[in-house]
Amino acid sequence: MTTYTAPLKDLHFILHDVLKVTDSGIPGYDALDPALTSAILAEAARLAEDVLAPLNRPGDAEGCRLENGVVRTPAGFRAAFDQVRAGGWHGLDLPEAYGGQGLPSLIGTAAGEIFVSANMAFNMYQGLTHGAVGTILAHGTEEQKRTFLPRMVALDWTGTMNLTEPHAGTDLGMIRTRAAPQPDGTWAITGQKIFISAGDHDLAENVIHLVLAKAPGGGEGTRGISLFIVPKVLVNPDGSLGARNALSVGKIEHKMGIHGNATCVMNYDGATGYLLGELHKGMRAMFTMMNEARLGVALQGYAVAEAAYQNAAAYARDRLQGRAVTGAANPAGPADPLIVHPDIRRTLLDQKSFIEGARAFTLWGATLIDAAHRGGDAAALGLISLLTPVLKGFLTDRGFDCAVAAQQVWGGHGYIEENGMAQFVRDARIAMIYEGANGIQALDLVGRKLAAEGGRPVMAFFEMVKAFIRENEGEAELKAGFLDPLKAASKDLQAAAMHFAAEGPKSPDAALAGSTDFLHLFGHVCLGFMWARMAKAAIAGLAAGASDPAFLSAKLLTGRYYMARQLPATALHLARIRSGADPVMALPAEAF
Amino acid sequence: MTTYTAPLKDLHFILHDVLKVTDSGIPGYDALDPALTSAILAEAARLAEDVLAPLNRPGDAEGCRLENGVVRTPAGFRAAFDQVRAGGWHGLDLPEAYGGQGLPSLIGTAAGEIFVSANMAFNMYQGLTHGAVGTILAHGTEEQKRTFLPRMVALDWTGTMNLTEPHAGTDLGMIRTRAAPQPDGTWAITGQKIFISAGDHDLAENVIHLVLAKAPGGGEGTRGISLFIVPKVLVNPDGSLGARNALSVGKIEHKMGIHGNATCVMNYDGATGYLLGELHKGMRAMFTMMNEARLGVALQGYAVAEAAYQNAAAYARDRLQGRAVTGAANPAGPADPLIVHPDIRRTLLDQKSFIEGARAFTLWGATLIDAAHRGGDAAALGLISLLTPVLKGFLTDRGFDCAVAAQQVWGGHGYIEENGMAQFVRDARIAMIYEGANGIQALDLVGRKLAAEGGRPVMAFFEMVKAFIRENEGEAELKAGFLDPLKAASKDLQAAAMHFAAEGPKSPDAALAGSTDFLHLFGHVCLGFMWARMAKAAIAGLAAGASDPAFLSAKLLTGRYYMARQLPATALHLARIRSGADPVMALPAEAF
Repeated sequence: MTTYTAPLKDLHFILHDVLKVTDSGIPGYDALDPALTSAILAEAARLAEDVLAPLNRPGDAEGCRLENGVVRTPAGFRAAFDQVRAGGWHGLDLPEAYGGQGLPSLIGTAAGEIFVSANMAFNMYQGLTHGAVGTILAHGTEEQKRTFLPRMVALDWTGTMNLTEPHAGTDLGMIRTRAAPQPDGTWAITGQKIFISAGDHDLAENVIHLVLAKAPGGGEGTRGISLFIVPKVLVNPDGSLGARNALSVGKIEHKMGIHGNATCVMNYDGATGYLLGELHKGMRAMFTMMNEARLGVALQGYAVAEAAYQNAAAYARDRLQGRAVTGAANPAGPADPLIVHPDIRRTLLDQKSFIEGARAFTLWGATLIDAAHRGGDAAALGLISLLTPVLKGFLTDRGFDCAVAAQQVWGGHGYIEENGMAQFVRDARIAMIYEGANGIQALDLVGRKLAAEGGRPVMAFFEMVKAFIRENEGEAELKAGFLDPLKAASKDLQAAAMHFAAEGPKSPDAALAGSTDFLHLFGHVCLGFMWARMAKAAIAGLAAGASDPAFLSAKLLTGRYYMARQLPATALHLARIRSGADPVMALPAEAF
Repeated sequence: MTTYTAPLKDLHFILHDVLKVTDSGIPGYDALDPALTSAILAEAARLAEDVLAPLNRPGDAEGCRLENGVVRTPAGFRAAFDQVRAGGWHGLDLPEAYGGQGLPSLIGTAAGEIFVSANMAFNMYQGLTHGAVGTILAHGTEEQKRTFLPRMVALDWTGTMNLTEPHAGTDLGMIRTRAAPQPDGTWAITGQKIFISAGDHDLAENVIHLVLAKAPGGGEGTRGISLFIVPKVLVNPDGSLGARNALSVGKIEHKMGIHGNATCVMNYDGATGYLLGELHKGMRAMFTMMNEARLGVALQGYAVAEAAYQNAAAYARDRLQGRAVTGAANPAGPADPLIVHPDIRRTLLDQKSFIEGARAFTLWGATLIDAAHRGGDAAALGLISLLTPVLKGFLTDRGFDCAVAAQQVWGGHGYIEENGMAQFVRDARIAMIYEGANGIQALDLVGRKLAAEGGRPVMAFFEMVKAFIRENEGEAELKAGFLDPLKAASKDLQAAAMHFAAEGPKSPDAALAGSTDFLHLFGHVCLGFMWARMAKAAIAGLAAGASDPAFLSAKLLTGRYYMARQLPATALHLARIRSGADPVMALPAEAF
């Protein structure tokens, strides 16, 4: 069986030594002093370690069942959800006006990592509700907010997002679900949606579906799309629950992973819906939901890898097999632990150096969101908009690789389901697919975000990296191990962006043929930047006589590994991008 | 549902246009004219496409069951196995003296790809028998051969290999299974083995286990190990079946994939065994079995990727989603097929260019085996010994990546088990683990094979690549697109080998820290070499007015993709290798 321990020391280091959140000037961050964040995260850790993690493997083995039209979640999920509800975890970073605690999203993100690592499938019931709340907050009427938000913030009701249809995944312009206006101002929703995560369950008394549908008069394609609130159970004017709405679960999918979360086919048969946001502007409202969801998925990418890594490292320390090539490390035992072997250390460091960099990147991203939403910082909004596809695509691709590598450390025992390592791989796999498959993230990055605002956000990113290098290159240890490699990697990224700028106008295919490589190149530069910032904090801490020098030394060594052995991938990505469109586009479709 | 069509044209191209097998001078290859190979492979294709592939998904869903100590395979497996048996497929490349057809292993490998692509789990019952037959052929007494081989070649009985124990996977020196000599010359085998593929089933009337055990007097570690033949049912002197032997199936494992193959815990309770080969020389005999098994696993790596790729390409041609960035390609339809999108083409070409290169590499490897075993060619033996870990490690790592990429093309539909794409990923995963986890392959390559025979095989490989470049650089198209990149990649490989030669004596960790990168670097050079050879054949065919120029043009375009977008990975691997041992070894074990 696998175990999980929340990385509280690592989270503290990023929040307070790297991001220095209380000094950041972001509205609300003055409250996030070490005493508060430590208390919150320690409590999240207790719930995650003691309640959620032990349900991860059983939830996977049992899965969800559809019984007489009602979804049953695995044994123990309901009691655990009651604890999440009672702890007020969902409202941590939601407005006090609707029953939340009003803290910044940064602390919600940090706690979220802990919950996802412990039990990704379980946490999705809460995570999707969070996205739905955000959308109603941004686009709902006062009455809609009053009706739905208090109960959703409290997790009495949960939320979903209904986009996909059998023939329309990425291409939402083709959806067929219709909304017909009713005399009373409501809409009758009719159609079928698929892949609806947390679409139904027995954890709460109502499910509030946000459904994309076409209302008359909007025109073809995505222009005609509007967003609707469609509750499973209708809500009476006094807030009590009324009649069942005309919607049902068609089936639940048999998936490769996240078995503990019910992925539903939802049938809407003239169900009563309420327009959310402007008519025919549903795509814009949907993106509010999608952007938050994408950051949540980015977090899943590294959080599942963290859980897998912890168990790989533990196995490598315990499992005795073979002898160190430099002489027995455990001469009294029958063999040495796996961790003496260089190739085992290599794979563990690949994982560890990615995960720690990804954590810093994600939490930094959360500060940008807070700066944008709480502080009205337009530059921060532009930057997080640019970085969202990088976070989602890079962290889920590499997070999956890490889960596979962690499973590999267990050898044949990793392939046996009872041991739990295979589940990490199966669960992590979905994060590369949903909320916009990673190829779509790359398209969004290269085809849209790079040129947004005349390229101002990407320029600002380059400038930020350059300024950091300039300000810190007097520190010799930082310069050689971190800043010089970061400078080289950042130059590769700029060269790639210039290649697109030069070739794109001539051939749009040239840019798109390199889109996935560009996304990964960008991801490496971001992690390199994060490692440089973490190294700076570690060096400063060591110089100041920090109480745990071993922790800070390990940070430096792990960072040096990333810079020496992962960051050089930028040159490969640049070489591929420069090979242009022809290798990708020349083969006729029928020759594939 | 997925489908499968055997790539007969590709196999023919490699056998006859690239390897030119009938001209090769390898004993027995004169029989392999196009008429014979086409007839054999077309018949294999019929069986694979019509019988084995349709059982792949049902076999995965149903899995194997242990009922009252007996393993039941999925519905349809028994009838399908009868067809394999009746077709004489197992004996294709086994000696006529024992009922086989005596053809070279090359043709067995080509047919094997087809069977594995169609149904990997099913094919393992046959594949493990083939390895056991090879071991008895190499090390058995005349009486053992007479007793076991005719029935095993005919698939009336199947075989297994029993190595692993719960505490001893890679480190076989720690095994606890004991062999006690009996007055009648037999041995009493006692112990527990785990992860025994095809350990029991209802497809044949007997299972012949080859079991590693310690016999008294051999000394510590691997020195004391001997190999034993331990039949499930004892065989009477007249060849008829006698009493059940004292062995039983403890349980069958619940695995991530290959559900159709029973992975058994085997308990030996004083079971009667017969010494196979020399006493206390069991490791040597075991390597006969392992080397063949490793090549079989290499083949699984790309064969499962081939099946996954076919279904990804078909989906990309059929699924309508979005519009080509250069203008609608299917203006009459609601959207364009996925295959118009550059990033979809990129991922399909990653897969296709790897698979076709891997096929050539594997079949070339089979010719080396035939040259060594049939022709007594010591240089070929040295070369295939060097290349075996590259084949196993590189082809299974990259084959798994391809299966994941193929699943990704299907988007959310790829995550739904009923659609079959997830199974390819789950099945492909085991090939990276069993028959020596890929980290062990890298250790074998760098720690043993590179220095074998004073480095003669690796020198011969470099010389072979150089000679090919020298002989063909007059051909301009070949030079620019293929030979120049191959030369650069080969130089990276030589530089890496020289780095190990220089650093290894100072620090064995330095070489081993780069072992996995070296394996992948080597794999890329081998595939680059194969693509150069395929390109040469394609150019020659086009110049000679071949009947299918579109096929040959596609080969050239696919090869150019590999050279432009995959082969540059060699520089990254070299950079990592040159970063040395320190980044890998510096972190204390407790800091992981």
